[in-house]
Amino acid sequence: MKHEPVVLINAFEVAVADDEAFLQGWERARNSLRTQDGHLSTQLHKSISPAAEFRFVNVARWQSEGAFRVATARPEFSSRAVPYAFHASLYTVVREDDRSTGQTQWQR
Amino acid sequence: MKHEPVVLINAFEVAVADDEAFLQGWERARNSLRTQDGHLSTQLHKSISPAAEFRFVNVARWQSEGAFRVATARPEFSSRAVPYAFHASLYTVVREDDRSTGQTQWQR
Repeated sequence: MKHEPVVLINAFEVAVADDEAFLQGWERARNSLRTQDGHLSTQLHKSISPAAEFRFVNVARWQSEGAFRVATARPEFSSRAVPYAFHASLYTVVREDDRSTGQTQWQR
Repeated sequence: MKHEPVVLINAFEVAVADDEAFLQGWERARNSLRTQDGHLSTQLHKSISPAAEFRFVNVARWQSEGAFRVATARPEFSSRAVPYAFHASLYTVVREDDRSTGQTQWQR
């Protein structure tokens, strides 16, 4: 495991009728994880269209893959079943382009 | 269509052997879109694991849904076929939590 920042991207399949229940469950998980070492930030995205395949997508930054693994392996977190289909992986940013700062970064 | 910032999240299914071809195609599309009105930023994420379901995920910010629709409806962009399965939707940020700034924002 490398000691570089990683990005968790987690795409959830949630029916429109389940929005409030999903948000409550997500907030409980977020409240648990945000206190863990290495958690940097979280952004939860909701689709504009109710017909989107993934109606919620969480993008969370962690200081390292190791910190993420430790935090999510804790029993009180890992034992909590998520009642929605989800697609989660860890990522690094390989291309970045920001007009507001004029920065373009290319990484391999 | 509302005039608020939107986030395009696009998850691509790319085999490991196709990484370079995918990146070249993505850069061509990015170079075209970055010059369009309303494009704010783009971050391309690559999965740490080669076994990830979505090996690349693009997260791009636009000033509005309308600006995104205009830019991607241009013939030179819309006629270009993407030879990879992808899952794209537009989102808004509904929960935000950033330890580095101490900001917590809750939106509906």
